[in-house]
Amino acid sequence: MTELFAIGLGLSSYNTAGDVLETFYPTPLLGPDAAIGGAFLGGGADAADEPRDGVANVTPAHAASVAARLRDAGAENVAATAARLAEADRPLTLTLLHRDRPIAHTAEAYLKLHLLSHRLTLPNSLDLEGLFAHLPTVAWTSAGPIDATELPDRLLDARLRGERLQVDALDKFPIMANYVMPAGVRIANTARVRLGAYLGDGTTVMHEGQVNFNSGALGPNMVEGRISQGVILGAHTDLGGGASTMGTLSGGGKEVVSLGERCLVGANGGTGIPLGDRCTIEAGLYITAGTIVRLIDADGRPGERAKARELAGQSDLLFIRHSASGEIQCRTNRSAIELNETLHKHN
Amino acid sequence: MTELFAIGLGLSSYNTAGDVLETFYPTPLLGPDAAIGGAFLGGGADAADEPRDGVANVTPAHAASVAARLRDAGAENVAATAARLAEADRPLTLTLLHRDRPIAHTAEAYLKLHLLSHRLTLPNSLDLEGLFAHLPTVAWTSAGPIDATELPDRLLDARLRGERLQVDALDKFPIMANYVMPAGVRIANTARVRLGAYLGDGTTVMHEGQVNFNSGALGPNMVEGRISQGVILGAHTDLGGGASTMGTLSGGGKEVVSLGERCLVGANGGTGIPLGDRCTIEAGLYITAGTIVRLIDADGRPGERAKARELAGQSDLLFIRHSASGEIQCRTNRSAIELNETLHKHN
Amino acid sequence: MTELFAIGLGLSSYNTAGDVLETFYPTPLLGPDAAIGGAFLGGGADAADEPRDGVANVTPAHAASVAARLRDAGAENVAATAARLAEADRPLTLTLLHRDRPIAHTAEAYLKLHLLSHRLTLPNSLDLEGLFAHLPTVAWTSAGPIDATELPDRLLDARLRGERLQVDALDKFPIMANYVMPAGVRIANTARVRLGAYLGDGTTVMHEGQVNFNSGALGPNMVEGRISQGVILGAHTDLGGGASTMGTLSGGGKEVVSLGERCLVGANGGTGIPLGDRCTIEAGLYITAGTIVRLIDADGRPGERAKARELAGQSDLLFIRHSASGEIQCRTNRSAIELNETLHKHN
Repeated sequence: MTELFAIGLGLSSYNTAGDVLETFYPTPLLGPDAAIGGAFLGGGADAADEPRDGVANVTPAHAASVAARLRDAGAENVAATAARLAEADRPLTLTLLHRDRPIAHTAEAYLKLHLLSHRLTLPNSLDLEGLFAHLPTVAWTSAGPIDATELPDRLLDARLRGERLQVDALDKFPIMANYVMPAGVRIANTARVRLGAYLGDGTTVMHEGQVNFNSGALGPNMVEGRISQGVILGAHTDLGGGASTMGTLSGGGKEVVSLGERCLVGANGGTGIPLGDRCTIEAGLYITAGTIVRLIDADGRPGERAKARELAGQSDLLFIRHSASGEIQCRTNRSAIELNETLHKHN
Repeated sequence: MTELFAIGLGLSSYNTAGDVLETFYPTPLLGPDAAIGGAFLGGGADAADEPRDGVANVTPAHAASVAARLRDAGAENVAATAARLAEADRPLTLTLLHRDRPIAHTAEAYLKLHLLSHRLTLPNSLDLEGLFAHLPTVAWTSAGPIDATELPDRLLDARLRGERLQVDALDKFPIMANYVMPAGVRIANTARVRLGAYLGDGTTVMHEGQVNFNSGALGPNMVEGRISQGVILGAHTDLGGGASTMGTLSGGGKEVVSLGERCLVGANGGTGIPLGDRCTIEAGLYITAGTIVRLIDADGRPGERAKARELAGQSDLLFIRHSASGEIQCRTNRSAIELNETLHKHN
Repeated sequence: MTELFAIGLGLSSYNTAGDVLETFYPTPLLGPDAAIGGAFLGGGADAADEPRDGVANVTPAHAASVAARLRDAGAENVAATAARLAEADRPLTLTLLHRDRPIAHTAEAYLKLHLLSHRLTLPNSLDLEGLFAHLPTVAWTSAGPIDATELPDRLLDARLRGERLQVDALDKFPIMANYVMPAGVRIANTARVRLGAYLGDGTTVMHEGQVNFNSGALGPNMVEGRISQGVILGAHTDLGGGASTMGTLSGGGKEVVSLGERCLVGANGGTGIPLGDRCTIEAGLYITAGTIVRLIDADGRPGERAKARELAGQSDLLFIRHSASGEIQCRTNRSAIELNETLHKHN
């Protein structure tokens, strides 16, 4: 059989019309070997040499046979999850993707978001075309996911029964921590980390931290600011309280921002350009692509001016706004000659 | 019978002393016609030519007769809600306001907050005198609203029963989404939008967005910053991540800030003055009423300096802090002559 | 018997291995007199002249006898709590600390955090050595505290039962409001105030406010910004929306920031230095210890320049970044001579 791109076996929620609202995959798989991939098929109506591509309902009994085959294939961990899912009292969702292609179903969207949060693949590595179109807006409530259009009736129903329905979000994306909790991570307020975030080992997201889907921190990191969609933080890079990384979805330009290793964006600062390694932006300073920056070399000599976008991806930069002149400066540990080369290499 | 200003039929919560903590009105009405207004009266002890003004308890049976009369009046939607409320096993709250006057009861305060969030009236259009005095501080918990003074006992009670009482807020205002969810709106973290917020169709409030009561966005808008009490955003105006609008309750001046259409306040920026249409404040820049701004005309020529408050409500302005000189500048698409007129017209 | 430093009688949660995850003390005591301290001992196996120091399990029956002895000692309030705890159907946690020493047990850590949030002692007054080591990372969920490592199984279990487990935080610290709700305080979003915060009477923490453990506001205060660990706000001092106080745990220096009375840090501003009384930092300006500041005296005459850290703790300062020159200035109500003395007294 052909190789598979990804597999997920899980549980879905539905609205009253029977449409999938969300899917939970306890142990999603990326690029499983043939033996493991094959274990999810066969043994029944689904048994074809070439598995169908996409989303299917399967019975808990099918999950039990999947578990047996996975155990035979030596995949104990995945087998254990399948065995647990076989305890379900309703149909399961089996999603198979032969290759990474545009998203065509809600359950496919959720599989890709799980792959990211399970750290099986990095942000910006998946084909997310069709993501928004296939994610319904869901009321995430204390009674589980509810179709947004069904919410008013449910609020009234709950009240009449003397119960309380609490609505945590009305959003296309759920909270990551209700689906995946990667090891070695702390999140002070889970409401601020969407499913699809990638949080590496040793990452702490404080109360003011925020991580969008398809973005993240490779770990270890201290995240007290906002990681916009598509943005990745390298190891030991910290975002200060309220610090901003400019996204491409709204307001920002087309170049995706990333930060290398051992960078610091100070509290209430921000960046609209990618940074290399060991860069610092002082607290309260926002650098956008169009910011004019005076270059200061390693000996403190002022050099030319450059647009910040010309410095994109460079390492060992310190951005400040001079407290006496008000000039935005970029100090480096390079000589004036190197600085000029940096400045002109994009011209 | 006289015309009514507003009507709400709903369910209240009470503290142990029997005081109303909050009221939920599924379908509040503003300026109902005489037939609909009359349907809420009559048929019982309340039947007088002139209905009493304010808050009353009514029986579920009364709600059933209200539903019948509303159906006769052709108000199917409101009738359906009344019919559902007739299923209640406890008294209902009927709030009638003949005219917009200062708030005299908790249930009246909640009716006005509902009118705003149901988009029946705009922020700054209601008489909110007495609002704070009539809103008790409530512990909003997983077990529903609890009087703040009764919370310690309830926390211990829950623990002794092996249960968990979760306290989401201790506030005079509840979360809007637990009462009203206007169509076409997404809210990534409902904890940040109070009942009494007005969110127009097509508005997205991201995790860092915040909307106070009696404030809002006419829609469509992207709200990633804070909309203070009294502030209104026009269509297609965006607040960047962490952007601030200065309120009048604390810190700000007396002039209520508003933003026209197609404005952008950049991430971590802010405004203490009202803006007209198509204005931009760059990321990280905070304009207060007293900020001295250099005017730059359409040809790039520097003109006079002005206090930002002199530019209040003007359109087509771009505010930046110059990255070389540190000067705060306001660039417009007008000529120097027009600029001077703008500057001096408030003198 | 010797005097005790602190006593707490409460209820703990445990992971499946039997380790304490957290402890709730409804009425913790600091420096109880001998009669009250003695009431917690005696009457059983624990009865020794010198009580053991640290954490012990006691029976509900022991709590009943404690309640009786407390009533005899005239401590009605504490007695009432002990009597309620005697209703428990499982062992209680009794924590006794003879003196303030490094933390050696999870239940000791929780006792100290309770002391702070019950306003029995001020931030920076307790020995918190060992705090992080003895606080396990807990998944704070709708089903109560769960060991972080046990969370994946619990998420799947809940789904299989058709229930929904909601994870609010994965953190060493719980939300204060689920343990203590000090009188006269409002918190718009409890997720942002950790147990161990000190909130004085009359303090309002708005949605954007955040208060770490071992930090706080003496009250009354309006907190719309972030109070970092170790930072204390004096009476009538306000933190504007998104305002930052630099902490010592990450990014900041070694000097603990504090703010005196009647200060204001404007929206999106911040401070890395301690402030005296009646100081203001304008909206959007971040002062760090190394910021060079031009001193302007009471007559508007520019004086020398100083590093902001030289002004640490001074009163009656107004920090702005000049809107024309971009220079950061500190205006005072003092003469130039006094200013120079201030400047040089730390040299």
